[in-house]
Amino acid sequence: MKFMKLLLIFIPISIVGEFLHFSPTIMFILAALAIVPLAGLMGEATEEISYYTGPKLGGFLNATFGNATELIISFFALKEGLFDVVKASIAGSVIGNILLVLGASMLAGGLKFKTQTFNKKIVEVSSSMLLFAVIGLSIPAIFTHTLKSELLNTQYEGLSVAVAVIMIIIYLFSLYFNFFTHKDLYVLNDEEQREANWSLKKSIFVLIVATVLIAIESEFLVSAVEPMTEALGLSTFFVGIILIPIIGNAAEHSTAVVMAIKNKMDVSIEIAIGSSLQIILFVAPVLIFLSLLFTPMSIIFNEFELISLVVSVLIANRVASDGESNWLEGVQLLAVYFIIGASFFII
Amino acid sequence: MKFMKLLLIFIPISIVGEFLHFSPTIMFILAALAIVPLAGLMGEATEEISYYTGPKLGGFLNATFGNATELIISFFALKEGLFDVVKASIAGSVIGNILLVLGASMLAGGLKFKTQTFNKKIVEVSSSMLLFAVIGLSIPAIFTHTLKSELLNTQYEGLSVAVAVIMIIIYLFSLYFNFFTHKDLYVLNDEEQREANWSLKKSIFVLIVATVLIAIESEFLVSAVEPMTEALGLSTFFVGIILIPIIGNAAEHSTAVVMAIKNKMDVSIEIAIGSSLQIILFVAPVLIFLSLLFTPMSIIFNEFELISLVVSVLIANRVASDGESNWLEGVQLLAVYFIIGASFFII
Amino acid sequence: MKFMKLLLIFIPISIVGEFLHFSPTIMFILAALAIVPLAGLMGEATEEISYYTGPKLGGFLNATFGNATELIISFFALKEGLFDVVKASIAGSVIGNILLVLGASMLAGGLKFKTQTFNKKIVEVSSSMLLFAVIGLSIPAIFTHTLKSELLNTQYEGLSVAVAVIMIIIYLFSLYFNFFTHKDLYVLNDEEQREANWSLKKSIFVLIVATVLIAIESEFLVSAVEPMTEALGLSTFFVGIILIPIIGNAAEHSTAVVMAIKNKMDVSIEIAIGSSLQIILFVAPVLIFLSLLFTPMSIIFNEFELISLVVSVLIANRVASDGESNWLEGVQLLAVYFIIGASFFII
Repeated sequence: MKFMKLLLIFIPISIVGEFLHFSPTIMFILAALAIVPLAGLMGEATEEISYYTGPKLGGFLNATFGNATELIISFFALKEGLFDVVKASIAGSVIGNILLVLGASMLAGGLKFKTQTFNKKIVEVSSSMLLFAVIGLSIPAIFTHTLKSELLNTQYEGLSVAVAVIMIIIYLFSLYFNFFTHKDLYVLNDEEQREANWSLKKSIFVLIVATVLIAIESEFLVSAVEPMTEALGLSTFFVGIILIPIIGNAAEHSTAVVMAIKNKMDVSIEIAIGSSLQIILFVAPVLIFLSLLFTPMSIIFNEFELISLVVSVLIANRVASDGESNWLEGVQLLAVYFIIGASFFII
Repeated sequence: MKFMKLLLIFIPISIVGEFLHFSPTIMFILAALAIVPLAGLMGEATEEISYYTGPKLGGFLNATFGNATELIISFFALKEGLFDVVKASIAGSVIGNILLVLGASMLAGGLKFKTQTFNKKIVEVSSSMLLFAVIGLSIPAIFTHTLKSELLNTQYEGLSVAVAVIMIIIYLFSLYFNFFTHKDLYVLNDEEQREANWSLKKSIFVLIVATVLIAIESEFLVSAVEPMTEALGLSTFFVGIILIPIIGNAAEHSTAVVMAIKNKMDVSIEIAIGSSLQIILFVAPVLIFLSLLFTPMSIIFNEFELISLVVSVLIANRVASDGESNWLEGVQLLAVYFIIGASFFII
Repeated sequence: MKFMKLLLIFIPISIVGEFLHFSPTIMFILAALAIVPLAGLMGEATEEISYYTGPKLGGFLNATFGNATELIISFFALKEGLFDVVKASIAGSVIGNILLVLGASMLAGGLKFKTQTFNKKIVEVSSSMLLFAVIGLSIPAIFTHTLKSELLNTQYEGLSVAVAVIMIIIYLFSLYFNFFTHKDLYVLNDEEQREANWSLKKSIFVLIVATVLIAIESEFLVSAVEPMTEALGLSTFFVGIILIPIIGNAAEHSTAVVMAIKNKMDVSIEIAIGSSLQIILFVAPVLIFLSLLFTPMSIIFNEFELISLVVSVLIANRVASDGESNWLEGVQLLAVYFIIGASFFII
């Protein structure tokens, strides 16, 4: 994590680059490198604040701000009308969390420990929730692709907003479930009672500064997407589904891997599946609502996104169901991710 | 259940309505309201008869007459050539049982009990049987849609009849399994030894009268479908997949919810999954055979039906696999049902 | 197994038939009947050799030569450019193993024993590996069919070779997992310590002779495919997906059923799932590599093959997850196989 802080140097570099009109590809890389440590700082600040707010509000803050970076990046993409990139990065976050993060965690942990076990009960609750959430999110798209005809755009909007409302409601219910009716389920094993490292003032200050800087860097990143993809012959789809999720989640990813190496596989899996759930139940609906401010975005995923989502959910449910992991399972998850990535690259 | 008996008043009202040529929409509603308590009475009568026949024949009667109402409604739809409605209501019964009935049961039960457990072993047997049954029923349709070409109708017929024969054979085998080779598996927890409430004569009398009245009301209902959908701008597909299954299964549904509130989640799940199984293994094949009397109906479901079936089965299997339920799981099942319903409504 | 040896008589008969220019249908049947016992002999010889090499190298030999017959048949089909037959027989082997072999084993075993249990842990490892392998193998095809456009052939080749390389790497990793890092997982229950029946010399001699004869018979078989299908009005696809896998796996199949009757359901399931895994992770990639010697074959399965693969994997995972089997489960697996077979026959 300390190594990550070194990347903060890319904030001034990217700002200088913006003024000196660096090439889009360079600007994309600089902004990406700057966002990674900022997302980490934001997560750290949120966690510090949660020490002062008590566990319930703290849990809510952690859950809700956990994907703030992706929300900010997507907001700017939305503003630019890059709907393809926004939707691809929603699907890409889920794939990345389930295949890349979980795969890397299981491999890293499995190289140190022969077999790692995790609390099957908790993971089954999340993974079955993920199944429901992905099915709910996908149904309008599946029906639309099957129909093949052109429904009136206004109907899609209505359906998208309806699904978004249902998702947000389920999200609120799930927080109520986690923090009120079934909170005892979530007393994770040997959660050490830590003290806050930062003062509340400092935490809030860091949170605000990080948010502002992420917004600035996201604008750099998003404006570079189109000219960069043209220059390099990449598809914006590939950028959305592979690159942006990696940038937005890098901090969280490294936490998951570190936890796996510490043999806390429960935490790694909860990060991966929980983060996917937040993307679907919170980030996606919020983006649908925000899009109403500009041009309404439909919730209709394309077929590649659908397939990737379904594959991820099947694998997450399979992985959850045996309560154990080993290095070979990690390798297999990574292999599926690479095959998906390679296919997208060629497409 | 007593409230339901009040609905019997709609039998004379609907008959009067038929003579006074009420509008189709009104007639549809009246007939629907009349069928609900009749289906309940029929179930009660069958159960009473089973006290006299001994458990084996009784179990067979319960299993086979459990979906008699749907069979009768579908028979009249078949006679009118409303194949779309018939097939939609087969798929709709499965979706309704798995998502609506199970969701409502888990929600209602979960509001009273924090976590409800059920016998994983029994539920896994049924849910894996449901997986096989849905796969078997869907394969001809999946291949046909993939093929996209127009096979000769006679080939579809042959394939449909072949699949129907296989389904019925599996159905008979499964009764043999339940009542002979593995009947000890089905000694449900604390099944209280009840006495019959009705005499055998009365039971048979009620069964016959209810069947005749259901047949009359089904004819009212089915003849109202086409003019009603035209008048209201609904699709017959929506009527078939959402409305008819709710009408045909209302009595059973309320039993499932009542059982969940009594913390007998095993029974609720067996009603939901068992009823789905009977629809696929018994009702669907019988309808294929009956259609040979009129115009042969193929077993080729459309893509929406297929997707809904697959989604229901995946969810049923997921739900079964952890042996526990809570209110949030119920909410999620209902949410998926509403999203499917809303999508069908728009389509 | 002794009965099988009688079939060796078809080796000279088929050679005579070749010289006397028997009809292709007769030649196909003769070659098929000759291959069945040869595949059995080859398996026996490999197992005998493994007593001399020690368990690790022996395990590797068994795993790698287990599907040698299919590899040889496919090699000749490849040489003749019958890509459809090759790909169909890859998919068909997986379907056959999961539905036909497992179904027959569970039925045969279930008729003798009420409920058969197996080691859930081992089977879950294999079945989840099968899930990953099938997903990996299918992704390029799924994306391609979704795309519907015509990618340049060279891109398919690149993607196919890349996927083949990943599969082979996973295969090697899985051997390393089985024989080194997690070999204790695979100490099967009460594996009796047997002695070798044959001398090492004899074993190697039998292996070589069987391999040569299988090659000769495979050439007969493959050259008969096209004229036979034309004469009988069958599709080469049907031959590839149903007939060839049965011929290539008959010896293994009978072992699985025999083991089930001996109540060693673990072994039966490991044969079925393990053999499917070897087909996907070893045989398919090797065929892709071999095809580079002639005309490069892409790894793009058609939609029927994909659906069949997905269905098989879902069922394998479902079956694995409860750790028990009974005769009804066997009947259901066989029913799905027959419905798939009937659909292919009509198509």
